[in-house]
Order: sequence, then structure tokens, then C-alpha cells
Amino acid sequence: MANNNSLLKTALIQQKFHGSKEATIAVTSSLVAEAAKGGAKLVVLQELHQTEYFCQSENTEFCSYANSFEEDVKYWSNVAKQNNVVLVSSLFEARAPGLYHNTAVVFECDGSVAGKYRKMHIPDDPGFYEKFYFTPGDLGFEPITTSVGKLGVLVCWDQWYPEAARLMALRGAEILIYPTAIGWFDGDTTEEKDRQLNAWITIQRSHAVANGLPVISVNRVGFEKDSTGVLDGIRFWGNSFVCGPQGESLVHANSEDEKVIFVEIDKQRTTDVRRIWPFLRDRRIENYSGLTKRYLD
Amino acid sequence: MANNNSLLKTALIQQKFHGSKEATIAVTSSLVAEAAKGGAKLVVLQELHQTEYFCQSENTEFCSYANSFEEDVKYWSNVAKQNNVVLVSSLFEARAPGLYHNTAVVFECDGSVAGKYRKMHIPDDPGFYEKFYFTPGDLGFEPITTSVGKLGVLVCWDQWYPEAARLMALRGAEILIYPTAIGWFDGDTTEEKDRQLNAWITIQRSHAVANGLPVISVNRVGFEKDSTGVLDGIRFWGNSFVCGPQGESLVHANSEDEKVIFVEIDKQRTTDVRRIWPFLRDRRIENYSGLTKRYLD
Repeated sequence: MANNNSLLKTALIQQKFHGSKEATIAVTSSLVAEAAKGGAKLVVLQELHQTEYFCQSENTEFCSYANSFEEDVKYWSNVAKQNNVVLVSSLFEARAPGLYHNTAVVFECDGSVAGKYRKMHIPDDPGFYEKFYFTPGDLGFEPITTSVGKLGVLVCWDQWYPEAARLMALRGAEILIYPTAIGWFDGDTTEEKDRQLNAWITIQRSHAVANGLPVISVNRVGFEKDSTGVLDGIRFWGNSFVCGPQGESLVHANSEDEKVIFVEIDKQRTTDVRRIWPFLRDRRIENYSGLTKRYLD
Repeated sequence: MANNNSLLKTALIQQKFHGSKEATIAVTSSLVAEAAKGGAKLVVLQELHQTEYFCQSENTEFCSYANSFEEDVKYWSNVAKQNNVVLVSSLFEARAPGLYHNTAVVFECDGSVAGKYRKMHIPDDPGFYEKFYFTPGDLGFEPITTSVGKLGVLVCWDQWYPEAARLMALRGAEILIYPTAIGWFDGDTTEEKDRQLNAWITIQRSHAVANGLPVISVNRVGFEKDSTGVLDGIRFWGNSFVCGPQGESLVHANSEDEKVIFVEIDKQRTTDVRRIWPFLRDRRIENYSGLTKRYLD
């Protein structure tokens, strides 16, 4: 049922941290150019793609990364414009001294800011001390309207929450997008590593299924040492992927390569799939009020 | 971390329709006995296990199946008691003339009724005309307390709704259980069949992941002809399975065999997994009110 208007050439940029912000954004910029040259109209970057995943430790020095937020926005605005692509970036936003967000900024292909999303669900577990850095988002779950469609941009930990995906779908998102930074601890068993990776893939594919939407997930690769030496570090597992609205795999990267991943997303399939699986028709909304409670004890 | 108290020997009964209700329940009863002999303390039957999947057509004659609900409850009560197992059955309930439910009745191992659940989400698509037969449930999403734990019993179409699984989890369910009846149309392509089966597995595994709970899904096997001749019929795809609280497969049946499927579920793993992945901690409940709306346009 695809037609030329419903096909969206998309690129995911799965990459490493290159030792410094300057070196990293230079690589990213060249990969965005490669994506555009390959015909991508939508380019999605991974979570906090400018730097190392600094949340491995609680260190006030890292807050300085957020101070360049305005300049960062200008920089990626220019990259979007130069390459004539809609660009999903993931930045560290200083909003006021001591008030920071993990913020996805989406740029229109003319470089204008189409919208932003502040990460709503904030994790905190050993090696992922995000509650230290990031105030939970206060912009809610609102899709961002762009020339390539309404984008339901969520970030990393959000991916474990069916509520977030559903709310984006109910507000008309056409694609769910997850910039993310997740990986393995080398000390874990192979079985535990497999369970974690498969759970991460499964939950995101399920958002596609439940909502009849394509899902894009972009994760970093490479090993990043814990600078405090408390833990060894994180081996980011890559596996960036895109699935269609039945959860079917459209493209799936490996756990190591830094690369541009191209995929063609057929936006028309959402309508086709939702006609055969009209899950939105049958929601028992009058019985869902408990979802707004912490626990029903 | 398992200990003897946290291990629950469970059996799933994946079966065919044997041409009549009498023949079918005789087979089921012997399979429950086999399950009990094998040590199962919890036995789960598939959706509407007493008969053919009659919802392939809209035929008032089939409503007669519901009239024996009280006798059916007595019959399965006795099976539970005889075999000393907690038994999850799936029956067609006549509540009043013209008012029917698709009802899971759970029996304690002494034969008493532990509780029931009336299917909340009712499908309706070609070959699955359930809205003709079943009034949507009015008992809400309430786990059923038994000697083997609090069971979050849901039925078939419910499996596509993350809301249902979450509400059961928030009310303290320790295991999510889905009796189901789903299959392929022979006329579909292999690719479409694969997408459907994988979507069905993925969405249910995702409920395990999102809620840190084991999931049991029991589906029928065998080809059942459409008696009206409008469609060819449904080839029920089996694939009954159990996964643990990270969505990891514990047991998975094939698409053809009628059999008892044994599995040991370690209930302690929920606590262990929820400690490393404390998703319930971080839900943004103040931003979830939109979930009680049909659509946010």
C-alpha cells in the first residue's frame, strides 16, 4: 500500500564518544552529512551525543556541559539547515543554575527549532546516576510537528514506560523516537546481558505493536570507563533499530559499529495495520483511572 | 536467589477442539490430571476451552453454550479439587437472557471459586466476532487471590493493552495470565503470519518487562473451519509460553501439539528484577491523566 508520499527515508547515527566534545561533534556532523547525501530526510542522533555518558558518576564538573546549551542549539540548527534534514538531537540543557534537563531538540530542515522534549522519566541506578543531573521534564508528552510528520520523541528510560508511548500516540504521533544510552557491565553473565538487551528491544517493539506506530531507537556504542573507578564502566550495546507498526524489524545494527543506518519508513502502514488491529477502538478508558496512581494498595 | 518457597510448578494446557464439548472437556480433564501428576500446583487452560472457537460466525445458537455456566463452574470446581490444583478456566457466562460474558473463573485447589474475571477488551474483526457475543466486563482489572499467589488473569484481546497489565501490576498481581484463542488465516502470506505471531509474543513479553512480572499465555491449536463458509477458518497457532520478569523465555510450545507444558516459575525473581529495574518508582503519574481519554485531539 506504500506510495511515494508515505515513504520516509530515515537515518540513525549510532556512534562512539571520541574523547572530547569537539572531536565527537565533528564525527557526528560528518555522519549527518553522509546521511543527507544518502537521501535521508529525517536524521536521529543518540542520547547526549555530544559527550561521553557523564552520568556514570555524580560530579558537579559535568554540569558545565549544560552551559553551552544555547550554542549547541545553534550548532545543530546549522547542521540541520546545511544538510536540509529534520534532525533529532539530544542535549544537556541548563535552564537556571542548578536546574538542568535532558532535552531532545528537534530541528526543521531550514534550521528552525521545531520543538523540544524534556526527558520525563529519569533513571537512577549504579552507573546511571541521572537523578543527580536531570530534573524530570515539565513539557509533558507532546509530539513535535515537523515537515516529515508528528514525531513522538522520548528519551531512553522513557522507553520502559508504555504510558509514555501511548500518550504520544493519543496525541497523534506518527513515529516514536528514542535516543538512548544503554549498555552492559562486563561483569554480568552472558545470560544476564542477553536478557537485558532482549528486554530493551522487546519493550520498544511492543510500543510499536500497542500503538500501530513505527519506532526508531538510537543507542551509542563503545566502552566508556567510569572515571571515578567505582565501577569499571559501561559497554554501550548499540543495536539501534527501527521497527514497523506490527513490531517487525526494518533495520537492526550490531553492538559495535559506528555508522549511519539507513531505513525507509512507510508511514501509510500505520493506517493499514490499525485497520486490522484497531486497538485504539477498544480501550476501556472508564476503567483506566488507576493508571494515574502510584500503586493501588 | 530462588528458594523452595518461591518456586511455583505450573502447567499450561494447549489443546485442540475435539468435535464436541463432551469430548473436549474429557481430554482437558485428563490433561489436568497429567499436570497434577507432574507436580503442577497451578494449571492454566486456554480461552473458551470447552468448545470450538464459536465466534468465527454470529449465530444465536451458540449462545446456548453459555446456559450451562453454573454446571460448568461445578464441573471445573470438581476437576480442581480432584487434582488439588489452582485452576484457571475460561467459560462462556450467561448472566441474563441476552447478556453474556467471556469469563475466566479461577478455582482454589479445594474446588472453591477464588474469583472471576470478565474479559474487559472485546475484539471484533472478520472471524473473531466477539462483540456479538460478549458484553465487555464490568469487574475491572482485579487480581484474584489464591494459595499460589495473586493472579492477574486477563483474556486474549486484553493482551494488546499495556493498560490492563499495568493495572493488574499496580493492584499487586504476582503473575499475569492470558488464556487466549488466536490463529492464522491460511490465505495470509508467511511474512504476515510471522509478523502477527511475533507481535503477539512481543506484546505479552513486554508486559513482563514493563511490570517485572512473569507472564503465562495459553493458546489453542488446530484448524477450525468457519461453519458459515464465509471464511475458510482459523488455524490456531499455539505457541503457548511463559516468560520471566525480564521477558526471558522460560518455556515455549510449538504451533501444533496438544500437550501439557510444564514450567517452574520463580516468584522471587520479581523482587530481584524490580530492584535493578525499578520502573514503578519513576512513573510520571501527574502526567498520565490523558490515558483515561479516547484520543487527545
